[in-house]
Amino acid sequence: MLKPIVLLRNAGKELQALRSAEGLLGWDQETFMPSKGGTARAESQAALSTVLHQRLTSDALWVLIENAAAQPDISDRDRALVREMRRDIEKARKIPEELATELARTTSLSQQAWSKARAKNATDEFLPWLEKMIALKRREAECLGYSETPYDALLDQFEPGSKASVVKPILDKLSEGLAPLARRIVEKSKAPGVASWQGKKADLETQRRFNETLLREMGFDLEAGRLDASAHPFTQGLHPGDVRLTTRYREDDWLYAIFSTLHEGGHGLYEQGLPEEEWGTPLGEAVSLSMHESQSRLWENRVGRSRSYWERYLPLAREYFGDALMATTLEELMSQVNKVQPSLIRVEADEVTYNLHIALRFGLEEKIFSGQLEVRGLADAWNSGMEKLLGIRPKNDTEGFLQDVHWSCGLFGYFPTYAMGNLYSAQISAAMERELGSLDVKIKAGEFAPMREWLRDRIHKHGREFPAAELLHRATGEDLNPEYFLKYLETKYL
Amino acid sequence: MLKPIVLLRNAGKELQALRSAEGLLGWDQETFMPSKGGTARAESQAALSTVLHQRLTSDALWVLIENAAAQPDISDRDRALVREMRRDIEKARKIPEELATELARTTSLSQQAWSKARAKNATDEFLPWLEKMIALKRREAECLGYSETPYDALLDQFEPGSKASVVKPILDKLSEGLAPLARRIVEKSKAPGVASWQGKKADLETQRRFNETLLREMGFDLEAGRLDASAHPFTQGLHPGDVRLTTRYREDDWLYAIFSTLHEGGHGLYEQGLPEEEWGTPLGEAVSLSMHESQSRLWENRVGRSRSYWERYLPLAREYFGDALMATTLEELMSQVNKVQPSLIRVEADEVTYNLHIALRFGLEEKIFSGQLEVRGLADAWNSGMEKLLGIRPKNDTEGFLQDVHWSCGLFGYFPTYAMGNLYSAQISAAMERELGSLDVKIKAGEFAPMREWLRDRIHKHGREFPAAELLHRATGEDLNPEYFLKYLETKYL
Repeated sequence: MLKPIVLLRNAGKELQALRSAEGLLGWDQETFMPSKGGTARAESQAALSTVLHQRLTSDALWVLIENAAAQPDISDRDRALVREMRRDIEKARKIPEELATELARTTSLSQQAWSKARAKNATDEFLPWLEKMIALKRREAECLGYSETPYDALLDQFEPGSKASVVKPILDKLSEGLAPLARRIVEKSKAPGVASWQGKKADLETQRRFNETLLREMGFDLEAGRLDASAHPFTQGLHPGDVRLTTRYREDDWLYAIFSTLHEGGHGLYEQGLPEEEWGTPLGEAVSLSMHESQSRLWENRVGRSRSYWERYLPLAREYFGDALMATTLEELMSQVNKVQPSLIRVEADEVTYNLHIALRFGLEEKIFSGQLEVRGLADAWNSGMEKLLGIRPKNDTEGFLQDVHWSCGLFGYFPTYAMGNLYSAQISAAMERELGSLDVKIKAGEFAPMREWLRDRIHKHGREFPAAELLHRATGEDLNPEYFLKYLETKYL
Repeated sequence: MLKPIVLLRNAGKELQALRSAEGLLGWDQETFMPSKGGTARAESQAALSTVLHQRLTSDALWVLIENAAAQPDISDRDRALVREMRRDIEKARKIPEELATELARTTSLSQQAWSKARAKNATDEFLPWLEKMIALKRREAECLGYSETPYDALLDQFEPGSKASVVKPILDKLSEGLAPLARRIVEKSKAPGVASWQGKKADLETQRRFNETLLREMGFDLEAGRLDASAHPFTQGLHPGDVRLTTRYREDDWLYAIFSTLHEGGHGLYEQGLPEEEWGTPLGEAVSLSMHESQSRLWENRVGRSRSYWERYLPLAREYFGDALMATTLEELMSQVNKVQPSLIRVEADEVTYNLHIALRFGLEEKIFSGQLEVRGLADAWNSGMEKLLGIRPKNDTEGFLQDVHWSCGLFGYFPTYAMGNLYSAQISAAMERELGSLDVKIKAGEFAPMREWLRDRIHKHGREFPAAELLHRATGEDLNPEYFLKYLETKYL
């Protein structure tokens, strides 16, 4: 007779095997699926989601949890496993099967509708989907329950234990610090103008090879993952041995794809660094989205936007793209890489103004779920908010609220994890630097292994054993301290 | 209250949605999956297969079938739907869940093992997997039941109603006719020698575009499908709006990929031609593998190896590949395209000797499942059989019994459908020509629509409404007559 904890692990592995199949459906939808495959894809997503929901909410699984919890001789790690699985199952059991199915189907269709609407700036085609999605998420929040506001139930899905009343003061304080800082930086630095390579064609296949090389150098294992192209870059981890990244290329700008690639590469290292033997248990899953984002931002910004990084990789870029295209200097490149100026598109925003984009989305999401804002008023609210926070106004909704995929997939409460990720990232970098010595020396030498191993040891390998806040404390020796982030920006830019 | 037939259709759609997910996992494994993703992939395949088996064998579904069968007012088509679903379900209910799961997992792992073993001619690494696979298929055959030999149970999975005692005389007679015919053709034609373009590099991206153009011209909808590369070309239909084809390229031979592409394109037209509104019912599925193969062979051979086809497409090939590479004449090209000579690799064999390859495999499969041949003796038996039938002997097993993917996936009883497909194809072409007039005139003009529509109308759109033999009779006005195929070869080659 197998021990209860072993039975529970086996059940978890089977669930994860199905979740990985679901992940592949999602990845394929964004990368290779032909356009007429969308209807059937939504049905496959819905059917698989129904199966997963049935399994997760089955009484048989609940009994396994209870038995494992009652087993006296289990380790601390296994106790954490039971705790986290119970959390997932309790949540799932609050959602009726019919709602889970409908959410999956609508997510797939709504995302496809968004993609088409965004391409032709056809807001009206997307709004009915957004309304439907929000109605479903409201129902989900009511099912999940909350103590203060429905929005908390959504936040908690991405950042366990998170609440609007906790996130809001952090984001407010951050915005207060960032707005004047951004102004000072913009005043001090001169606008770099158009890059010397802009408009010069960079062969897409060469770009792809260069981006893969950068991933390989940072330690992303391309035999355990891939890099493809999609409209919105993302990472889909199916297993530590199968982690799919995407980026997006511009034929007239060799630099454009790189920060998306490094960003997703940071996510990818986390996914590849999860303990393979725990695949199928919460100990083999990332602890929270904020922590995930801390990894991506660390590689994108702390590493990829550093001078030392480009001291190393500008010569290599010249080899790949040729001298004609790369008639640039390190000085010019750095001024482009670290250009600070208010801009409309979040994923292309600089490190300084980035979090103001998040503050905008957080404010709107709060208003929508508290009933202060209707979907029909979203575009206006977005545009006014943008003007207020960043001093610029989108010309159309493709530059405005249609720019991000998230809302089309029902990812409300997700954006705040991006801002938190930046804060975590700065604090983690500082701790790493205290222990490993100058990161820039290592970056310039291309010695990424010590950094990668430190992150694996302190963050990745633990999965969900400790809550995110505790993991951060264990990794860095202190609680979350937003000062690290502001300090990092000041030191770098002023 | 919905009518029983409607409930049954809904259940079928959900099953198909999961089957499509399973199809995507398989497609991805052969195209884009990173090498370290294999273990998790086998788990996903096994988990999904378990779910499908549970659904298909559930008492709830059985009750739906019984109720639909008892509904008095259903149409003939719906009656066929019930008949075919009952057939599928009865089969599934004979297989224990544990065997279904084990088959799915072993298939995925064994295929990966085959792929590695074939690449380095490491027969010993693959044999244990083959033994395991055969043992599982034996168990499956015993579960399914048979009246004459266990092998019949496997044949019946791909060609409903098929039996070794029916297939054997057809294949024997075919071999008897083909062996002397092949000799006469080889004697008459002079060996064309090495093609003038052999060894000249044909850019892979250009090849891909050219192959896509050929697919588009024959009417394959690339918004409802894709063409990718894989070690073994195949077609995976997820839905009429999402049909995935693969081919394989050689950088030193622009012609090499084309026949695989046209072959899979023929399969693809069948999949895209299935009635979309019947997706999820047997009326939306191909009737049998022989019929499927008749479509692929028709486009590959009757169309793609005709003089008229290359009168049309040689000039286009020149545009794509340039005059330097394409310093060839129509005469030379045709002698390469229709080169007849005994060869070792089935998928590269000419139309004349092809079926001798099938006869070899059929004979070996029969012997394995009747216990006359052990797995350890397979390589020798293959090589001797090859020598006897074709007069040549493989240098190693990669050229021998390791060449095909099928056995690694447990596809025993599958090969005979390839030979039957050739016979069907010739009979169908003849019927089409009687009704539409000269096919060559149409091919030369690139007028593929009438042929495609004729095939859709006579074959594709019916799904599994009629058994394959009846569908063939309805489409061509007579029962299977192998003379059409021999006649076609004689007329073309002598």
